[in-house]
Amino acid sequence: MKANYLTNVPLEKAKDNYLKALKENGFAGQKETIKTKDAIGRITANAIYAAINAPHYPASAMDGIALVASKTFGASETTPAILSKKDYIVVDTGDPIPDGCDAVVMIEDVIEKNGKVYLYKPASPWQHIRQIGEDICQGEMIVPSHTRISASTIGALLAGGIVSLDVIKKPLVGIIPTGDEIVKPSANPKPGDIIEFNSSIFSGMLKEWNADTKVYPIVKDKPDKIKEAIKKALDACDIVILNAGSSAGRDDYSSKVIAELGEVLYHGISIKPGKPAILGLKESQPILGVPGYPVSGIIVIEELLKPIIDEWFRDGGKEKEFAKAVLTKPIVSGLKYEEFVRVKLGEVDGKLVASPLNRGAGVVSSFMKADGIVRVPEKTEGFNAGEEIEVELLKPREALSNTLVAIGSHDPLIDELADMLHSANPKLYLSSTHVGSMGGLMAVKRGETHIAGTHLLDENNGTYNYAFIEKYFPKGGVRLVECVGRTQGIMVQKGNPLKIKAVSDLAKEGLRYVNRQKGSGTRILFDYLCKKDGIDTASIYGYDREEFTHSSVATQIANDTADAGMGIYSASHIYDLDFIPICTEVYDLLISDSAWDSPMVKELLKILKSNEFKERLEKLGGYTLNKPGQVKLHL
Amino acid sequence: MKANYLTNVPLEKAKDNYLKALKENGFAGQKETIKTKDAIGRITANAIYAAINAPHYPASAMDGIALVASKTFGASETTPAILSKKDYIVVDTGDPIPDGCDAVVMIEDVIEKNGKVYLYKPASPWQHIRQIGEDICQGEMIVPSHTRISASTIGALLAGGIVSLDVIKKPLVGIIPTGDEIVKPSANPKPGDIIEFNSSIFSGMLKEWNADTKVYPIVKDKPDKIKEAIKKALDACDIVILNAGSSAGRDDYSSKVIAELGEVLYHGISIKPGKPAILGLKESQPILGVPGYPVSGIIVIEELLKPIIDEWFRDGGKEKEFAKAVLTKPIVSGLKYEEFVRVKLGEVDGKLVASPLNRGAGVVSSFMKADGIVRVPEKTEGFNAGEEIEVELLKPREALSNTLVAIGSHDPLIDELADMLHSANPKLYLSSTHVGSMGGLMAVKRGETHIAGTHLLDENNGTYNYAFIEKYFPKGGVRLVECVGRTQGIMVQKGNPLKIKAVSDLAKEGLRYVNRQKGSGTRILFDYLCKKDGIDTASIYGYDREEFTHSSVATQIANDTADAGMGIYSASHIYDLDFIPICTEVYDLLISDSAWDSPMVKELLKILKSNEFKERLEKLGGYTLNKPGQVKLHL
Repeated sequence: MKANYLTNVPLEKAKDNYLKALKENGFAGQKETIKTKDAIGRITANAIYAAINAPHYPASAMDGIALVASKTFGASETTPAILSKKDYIVVDTGDPIPDGCDAVVMIEDVIEKNGKVYLYKPASPWQHIRQIGEDICQGEMIVPSHTRISASTIGALLAGGIVSLDVIKKPLVGIIPTGDEIVKPSANPKPGDIIEFNSSIFSGMLKEWNADTKVYPIVKDKPDKIKEAIKKALDACDIVILNAGSSAGRDDYSSKVIAELGEVLYHGISIKPGKPAILGLKESQPILGVPGYPVSGIIVIEELLKPIIDEWFRDGGKEKEFAKAVLTKPIVSGLKYEEFVRVKLGEVDGKLVASPLNRGAGVVSSFMKADGIVRVPEKTEGFNAGEEIEVELLKPREALSNTLVAIGSHDPLIDELADMLHSANPKLYLSSTHVGSMGGLMAVKRGETHIAGTHLLDENNGTYNYAFIEKYFPKGGVRLVECVGRTQGIMVQKGNPLKIKAVSDLAKEGLRYVNRQKGSGTRILFDYLCKKDGIDTASIYGYDREEFTHSSVATQIANDTADAGMGIYSASHIYDLDFIPICTEVYDLLISDSAWDSPMVKELLKILKSNEFKERLEKLGGYTLNKPGQVKLHL
Repeated sequence: MKANYLTNVPLEKAKDNYLKALKENGFAGQKETIKTKDAIGRITANAIYAAINAPHYPASAMDGIALVASKTFGASETTPAILSKKDYIVVDTGDPIPDGCDAVVMIEDVIEKNGKVYLYKPASPWQHIRQIGEDICQGEMIVPSHTRISASTIGALLAGGIVSLDVIKKPLVGIIPTGDEIVKPSANPKPGDIIEFNSSIFSGMLKEWNADTKVYPIVKDKPDKIKEAIKKALDACDIVILNAGSSAGRDDYSSKVIAELGEVLYHGISIKPGKPAILGLKESQPILGVPGYPVSGIIVIEELLKPIIDEWFRDGGKEKEFAKAVLTKPIVSGLKYEEFVRVKLGEVDGKLVASPLNRGAGVVSSFMKADGIVRVPEKTEGFNAGEEIEVELLKPREALSNTLVAIGSHDPLIDELADMLHSANPKLYLSSTHVGSMGGLMAVKRGETHIAGTHLLDENNGTYNYAFIEKYFPKGGVRLVECVGRTQGIMVQKGNPLKIKAVSDLAKEGLRYVNRQKGSGTRILFDYLCKKDGIDTASIYGYDREEFTHSSVATQIANDTADAGMGIYSASHIYDLDFIPICTEVYDLLISDSAWDSPMVKELLKILKSNEFKERLEKLGGYTLNKPGQVKLHL
């Protein structure tokens, strides 16, 4: 086994050989002794056998009298057994059976006359007695090794006299963040500072897998510092993660340092993202080099560290859940790697639909938003739109069934609706994707979404949405539901330093515009306004610079990377920008008939009509409400 | 709302009205502020909006040069843009874009000649630049309220500048065990001592639901002591559980005391087990009276406290999982209650089969062994054997598919096989039920089990199993696999005080025999031996006293509630009894053909042939091994 610098090993092979190498060096879960009462969720290290019987004494199973059964033999309706006080003892349920007695007669069958007890039926030996060991016998195996301890297992163990037991110790995973530019998380980073949140993500994942973690201070990109940090972590921890510095570019010392301290089995796995991973070890201790981009890091931790944690506990863990889903967009992938593509999932018309998310390795929010992962195998070019593919589910299947899918035009009010829906009924969720109004209409048409936010202007008559819906839904099957009126305008920097007054000012020399993507209602509106004013869009600097939401346009202006952009008032309000109102437009929700009777849509309509919705929009600003929730058109 | 002493309210009504009363009094999850990095698995108290953009500065998406795009306009293959050092700045991926620059040209497109840079294509504004807010925009909702925080959500929050946040505080649940006879768990309880393990079971359940718990010392059955304990717990905790003393029998003060401190909404729910539950409250604090029997207590906690915890967090929680299963035995239930019956489940021939477990409310091991719960509604008499019923799953569906079902004759070696199977492959499990050899054969025949341990003596020729299998499987479909030879004999107390030498001694006056259940191979053997020796079984005291396993027979003798019983050497060995060997019998495994190719059976056969199996049996004692794992008969 020699170090392979930037190898391109398939994931399965890398994983198997890494585990094999570790096990050959003695890698295994270590034991610790803990109190049984604190053992919830822990994994047994050995099979556990009962120390005592449960019950540990013969106990009465009834309220009644305990006696010697043979004294009642022959009793009948005509010749009862007659007992005096010395022949029986009164017992309650759970009381121990007195010495010498071997039966209990329930109180209902005990007839008292003149200080004597009359029994009209014989008692059979051991009737109404809970035998010793009825529940658990001493010496019996209560629970096998490598088994997760449930609450009722704790009960059975304590009943069996086991007050402490050996469990698998939680592995301690040391996480070392490295890099010259990375800084601790803060609300005031300086330009160029890269916020170090990977260690918190990895810690969270490991805690969910029952591991303990220790995050070390950030180490600068110096080989001797990194070496020292790994050494220290190897002394204190069971497993070590070195984060960043695992690509083969400049400032890459990780692989070299790990090789000096132990050995590097592989450097480079044929997965995307995650390729530059380093699989290293020192004797039985894994040292994992994890790439710096959060999405790459998450995939490497999930695919290469999780199996190591599973091997440590050996309890079978939780199986991954898979489902079939229909792709909304093609996925194009290279032949050289196994690629992991995060998708949003929705259950629409009884089938799962998967929409690929931004594949940038730096985009951590895409992992948060992902409901599933699609794997594109090596030597495959990808999948076509409409193809049925297998998806690993990151959320429970039933949560997906309870999720209202909103694909269409962006407005911050959609997020507020998501919050109100889940607050009103915690079983329900709203998941949104911003593709613009036209994209939303097409998604409804293709059965990929339940609802779509839309504000499409008909240039001919100044109305919104009607014409487009009539055109694209000739067979009907949809309802157009009133939502809000909202003020569109030009967002400019605070104080309006460039003195912009109208759309015609946007072609000025030196002005930096930022646009919305093609197909968005705002882009269509802007193009209409330019045409009306006779402005050549080629003369607008930044016309081709596209952002996908009102907020991202506003933030470019707030951060002085642009001077102006079209958008709604509420977005400019969040960033404290100046705003030149242009028009009030209609923002409706298009709802598929097949989703109309779902609990999610029913709750949504209630919310649209609620006072809280009104109050939240007042806070956002720039909205007018007429009759939200009203059906304007049913085709 | 008045106290109803021993009401019989349906569960749903009790639950709804209890939650309603609590909410009207202001019951809700409380907030606390914690660090984002520690927030894994916690529930957001509010919607969280990003404090900063991610990225928070425009960053280069490539290694290359940053420049002003307009300086390259018009560049072509024939007329390149020629830049001097002051026109560009070298940048690496992730570096901030220098002030004034608005594009990056990747290093591959940069041609250097004589200290100048030649570009043969124009750069468009903002090319190869990660825009501010590309991942997360300031002011954008990152996560709605009442949402579980995942590892990637932690990453998104930190990227969005949120270093601390409000989450729902874990509710603190105070648990007060009461009762005169109950004692702390120990390995040496005295007769009559009831081991107090309920508080540990309830704590375990609550911890799995993310609540914190505080267990108070055991309180004697005195109203003033109980009142004092509840008061103290109400001061310190959010929710209070009073355990035991909630039936209407003698020593029942719970309901009275709760009514004095607050109010009792219901005392008595129409569920079985669990009927005597008390639903009490003091203002917004729930006080739950939970019955003392562990199984009753678990049902009450699950059905009545879990919804309260869910209401506290309001995150939607985890849905219960249900499946259809075929009943192996009838379930008879009273009309008056909704009954909860625990079942073992197995996946045999592609269908789930459910075998009801011991319904005793004191039998805590049945909850540990349960794979599912069947609900028999009020006003229903139960279900028939063979009926398809709905079962709530207590284990993941895939674990059930990976479980080898063993129903048949008991031998401690079955537990050892279970341990070895799971240790060899942690994804596999073995689940066993002891119904005797004949019961096992019938279970194989009805498709309810994969394998059955069997040792059925053919009185005609002294062989084992062959004749029975040929008789009961005329159509074949099974294999008989050799397991072990084992020594059967009479287990007697240490030192053999009654000088028992043979079966004929067991009818002696004053001797207490303990028998095995009808249909068990040992019972059949014993009856055969009695017949051979001409003993009238009616003359054996205790002949009708039936135990279901070798261990439970042995433990009766070890605890001096019986003098003798038939059983195998290994059981007598565990309890250090004297043993009079009678014969060596054949204990085989009958395996259904439909299970033969399953990973569980394949692993089982490997184990039967292993050295470890041999070593484990040597430790147990009384076994002889010839060719375990060999197919003796394939019909």
